[in-house]
Amino acid sequence: MTATEQIPDTTQAELDAVLERAAEAAEAFGGQAPAERARQLAAAADALDAAADELVPLAIDETNLSRTRLGGELKRTTFQLRMFADVLRDGSYLRATVDRADPGFALGTKPDLRRVLHPVGPVLVFAASNFPFAFSVAGGDTASALAAGCPVVLKAHPGHPRLSVRTGELVAAALRDAGAPEGAFQVVLGFDVGTSALRDRRVKAAAFTGSVPAGRALFDIANARSEPIPFFAEMGSVNPVFVTPGAVRARGPEIARGYVTSYSGNAGQLCTKPGLLFLPAGHGLDDVLAEESRGVGAHRMLNERLHEGYRGRRDEVTAVPGVRVLAEGGVDGETLPTLLATDVDTLLAHRGALLEEVFGPLSIVVEYRSAEEAHRAAEAIEGNLTATVHAEPDEPDLAGALLRRLRERAGRVLFNGWPTGVSPSPAMQHGGPYPATTDARFTSVGTAAVDRFLRPVTYQDVPQPLLPEPLRDDNPWNIPRAVHEPR
Amino acid sequence: MTATEQIPDTTQAELDAVLERAAEAAEAFGGQAPAERARQLAAAADALDAAADELVPLAIDETNLSRTRLGGELKRTTFQLRMFADVLRDGSYLRATVDRADPGFALGTKPDLRRVLHPVGPVLVFAASNFPFAFSVAGGDTASALAAGCPVVLKAHPGHPRLSVRTGELVAAALRDAGAPEGAFQVVLGFDVGTSALRDRRVKAAAFTGSVPAGRALFDIANARSEPIPFFAEMGSVNPVFVTPGAVRARGPEIARGYVTSYSGNAGQLCTKPGLLFLPAGHGLDDVLAEESRGVGAHRMLNERLHEGYRGRRDEVTAVPGVRVLAEGGVDGETLPTLLATDVDTLLAHRGALLEEVFGPLSIVVEYRSAEEAHRAAEAIEGNLTATVHAEPDEPDLAGALLRRLRERAGRVLFNGWPTGVSPSPAMQHGGPYPATTDARFTSVGTAAVDRFLRPVTYQDVPQPLLPEPLRDDNPWNIPRAVHEPR
Repeated sequence: MTATEQIPDTTQAELDAVLERAAEAAEAFGGQAPAERARQLAAAADALDAAADELVPLAIDETNLSRTRLGGELKRTTFQLRMFADVLRDGSYLRATVDRADPGFALGTKPDLRRVLHPVGPVLVFAASNFPFAFSVAGGDTASALAAGCPVVLKAHPGHPRLSVRTGELVAAALRDAGAPEGAFQVVLGFDVGTSALRDRRVKAAAFTGSVPAGRALFDIANARSEPIPFFAEMGSVNPVFVTPGAVRARGPEIARGYVTSYSGNAGQLCTKPGLLFLPAGHGLDDVLAEESRGVGAHRMLNERLHEGYRGRRDEVTAVPGVRVLAEGGVDGETLPTLLATDVDTLLAHRGALLEEVFGPLSIVVEYRSAEEAHRAAEAIEGNLTATVHAEPDEPDLAGALLRRLRERAGRVLFNGWPTGVSPSPAMQHGGPYPATTDARFTSVGTAAVDRFLRPVTYQDVPQPLLPEPLRDDNPWNIPRAVHEPR
Repeated sequence: MTATEQIPDTTQAELDAVLERAAEAAEAFGGQAPAERARQLAAAADALDAAADELVPLAIDETNLSRTRLGGELKRTTFQLRMFADVLRDGSYLRATVDRADPGFALGTKPDLRRVLHPVGPVLVFAASNFPFAFSVAGGDTASALAAGCPVVLKAHPGHPRLSVRTGELVAAALRDAGAPEGAFQVVLGFDVGTSALRDRRVKAAAFTGSVPAGRALFDIANARSEPIPFFAEMGSVNPVFVTPGAVRARGPEIARGYVTSYSGNAGQLCTKPGLLFLPAGHGLDDVLAEESRGVGAHRMLNERLHEGYRGRRDEVTAVPGVRVLAEGGVDGETLPTLLATDVDTLLAHRGALLEEVFGPLSIVVEYRSAEEAHRAAEAIEGNLTATVHAEPDEPDLAGALLRRLRERAGRVLFNGWPTGVSPSPAMQHGGPYPATTDARFTSVGTAAVDRFLRPVTYQDVPQPLLPEPLRDDNPWNIPRAVHEPR
């Protein structure tokens, strides 16, 4: 297929067949030993790594992102697939619990109760545009749903259709060749089939990364079903950063440089971009902030639609009375970073314009005049993926007061760092209170992402041969279990 | 207060004060060491046990339930409070995870990441009518939310207002005397304040036990908020029981007796009442089933509204063509159990009438003519709290095929037992696919119920003195943690 050929949308009839295959695959795929699915995930990772020289140029062509960034992102993507393979080999994700029968139980005889997590069934994943590998076809949502044992129907993002189709072919073939059932992984294209699939009874959960309006609309569809399903949307985040007076004194210019690198990188098209930097009034960093911002090279945004959206939001924010320009940047063709400045009163008086994410290379410096004003600003911020404090060791009261407020409003709290860059690890939380996500109890990055696609089933007095493997006395999958003996 | 005095509803102004106190209590209550909250929960349990002679008669008067049943239920309620105190003392519910910094990480330097669960904030609990202790004011929802560190606003059920107010006074006083902040636990009364509270920004999660229409309406309100919140409704369940030919041959009459005891107990007002008993055609148990049912004594239902609802549903089900009466029972004043019979074709042709819960002492025997027909019936059933198989050891294929189908549709699968009676234990799952609950990933009974009211926060490179206690290197709360060292 050449770059100029149009990839047709999936038809409703094709979608029906896709969903039927996914539903039919569910029992076989979910019933495999975790070690088998681990091999399949690792095989998908190997196939993608081997195709890097084909995939990265496709991605460059469709997304305007750099070779370095995309090469690193593909590496991250295959790392995640292998990380979930490790989760499967470990087996503790199943949370197998055995409570043996207890004839002397305080509330009367207690039966033999054994609890384990089962896959929820077919999962619909809406791919994101800004990470064409790591949050797209074979990204974290797909990897975690497959790890859970759920067949995945991947709704490709229209921003990179050729890359999506090719990645999908490679992953599907690798899974199949490694023993996964037909229907374990399928890619569909088109807006209409996305919403149709979300309404379909065969789909049992869905995940999404994108804007608040799109995420909320899909969330509402998922909840309006006659049988509502879990819907995990990762949406908007302004990722506030608070800098204390001590931190400005100790390393103001270094903070300014780190901030500009973080907000302007990848043309600001990261969900963890710091959109607000709170500095004490009189910080004296205007010049270095402006200079650093003007030193950033031009970057074409992912696609024209995002570029137009960015242009509109940039106009809106810039027009707010009380907002001044530190670095004007630009939006003609390629973007140059725009840095604005305001104060807390203006921020709080124009919440709609200033406290909502601007997707693109724009950020706002907000001056606070007192600790009290900084706290008030922290309390006014809605849910976020991240929140950051820069402080010095001799300011524990101020730093502590800010951290306590920010942890109520974020999934990840950073100290003296920058929120861009999300390590996939067992302790990562990439989620946060609404509107950062629709369900702050779960993460879309890190090993805990698998929890989204599992539900517990308890087996009461079920004989050994009829129990699922992870609950049998002989523990054939050799997984860690919590065993409670009668007291 | 005498029985004839009317307890006034909470006003909207009073509700506002209640919610403000709950919001103000959140940080102090959630920030306590788990061992402190454990003492508070245990104190509440002690206070309720000490007041049994006052509370049980109040409950008898308001619910028509027996002294034996209510005494046992109060014991269960205080057992649960102490069980969650044990969960707190153990500390593993916090899922504290420490990933140390790794300069050699495959994707570039990994920061120090530490993850722990925090309470979500004030929780609104809608009490149930059918368990005036164990699923009401101080029931499992309240106990698990308090254990999580969430202030609870308890919306009392109108079926037992005096008991609710008195239980609330005792619990609130015990918590306060044991060191909980003012506002950790409050009771409100009235339909309007329930829905108002559910819409209020200060409420961060809610739990409910009751009917499908009420649960769904509240679920829709929770999801329509500008900031949606988790809403856990435990609603309708028919709790199917499948009996194999071998089980009928081996112990048909014993099964018939167990079934009648289970479906008719407490006038069928249990969420795990077996509403459908699948028997092989030609089972020959009609007489013993009818006789056992007719041997059950009369029982007054919880309240007049439920009695009227039961009367209507009983009429509807009985009128379905193809449904015959095994034991007619009665609905005049007190109820006598009604046992009906039909076949799989009729069941599937009248799903609306027959496959939805009848809340009260009615159950339906469904005859299947083949294993295939039994499987078809199992696949037609919606989400349930429980599903049961009675089979003999020489029928592993049939039993296995049924269990595999039923575990897709239930939170708890039983073998050769009866679903009524739900042990609060670490392996219990009291939940299930919709419409049994609105979120099959969680349970409302057992230690895992605490998971509903917690959300993870990750701390990145936060200095020791600013970390929350469970994540500090010196582990001052002495809780179990997963620690990941660089490889």
